[in-house]
Amino acid sequence: MTSEMEAYLHSNIPLSAAMGVRVKIATPEQVLLFAPLGPNINHHQTVFGGSGAVLATLSAWTLLHLRLVREQFDAQLVIQRSSMEYERPIPGDFEARCDFDDVDAWQKFRVTLERRGRARMTLNARLLHASHEMGSFVGDFVAIRSAP
Amino acid sequence: MTSEMEAYLHSNIPLSAAMGVRVKIATPEQVLLFAPLGPNINHHQTVFGGSGAVLATLSAWTLLHLRLVREQFDAQLVIQRSSMEYERPIPGDFEARCDFDDVDAWQKFRVTLERRGRARMTLNARLLHASHEMGSFVGDFVAIRSAP
Repeated sequence: MTSEMEAYLHSNIPLSAAMGVRVKIATPEQVLLFAPLGPNINHHQTVFGGSGAVLATLSAWTLLHLRLVREQFDAQLVIQRSSMEYERPIPGDFEARCDFDDVDAWQKFRVTLERRGRARMTLNARLLHASHEMGSFVGDFVAIRSAP
Repeated sequence: MTSEMEAYLHSNIPLSAAMGVRVKIATPEQVLLFAPLGPNINHHQTVFGGSGAVLATLSAWTLLHLRLVREQFDAQLVIQRSSMEYERPIPGDFEARCDFDDVDAWQKFRVTLERRGRARMTLNARLLHASHEMGSFVGDFVAIRSAP
């Protein structure tokens, strides 16, 4: 599943290939993405903030995408808003991790998507370096069911 | 100034080169950056949200960088937090524009940076496509004076 998801990201979102994004874990409960410092460096020789925001966005998007696929929802997934806290400079390769196991929130999302053809979900992700948290992300995504 | 700034971005933040970022306007009052759809596309054939966030971040960072250069401040500029509203899908090439002419806020920032060696500034930017606003960005940046 990880190499399949990696190929999907690289071919559909070319920026993920340019950033060297690797998919380490890709399940509907947890997504862990990796990116090397090289293509994501800034003038301070640390990770460019924009790259951190992109990796976090991709981790949350991927988790929600995998959940929709598992339930065989044919839906478009769009980001509506996001916020990012850059807690400390990241001096090397980094990861973004998104966990989700809120059964009630997921059930509500499913029912709303079925009934109204549209539902919103908020996901959190964290930026990591050597297992330490370096930043945090919150994103609101909207799923819109495709016309049958 | 625009080609100089473009070369600076491409060499110091390689992701900006991978995205095809062009600098159209680069003054301490207004920065306008352009990016083509191609390297920034997503699976819906619109602009990947992450690319929008990156271009907006770069526009605000560039404006503050140019202000610090004009005043000959030798300071590190770091992003602390940001938020992005994705108002509508962007179906082609896009721009990020950051304007700033708040004399009082700038004066306060200058004085704080001189006295304390550290100051914070909030900047807004907008994502544009064919002159229409497609998204909006708010970012908090911190300048830290380099040790003499």
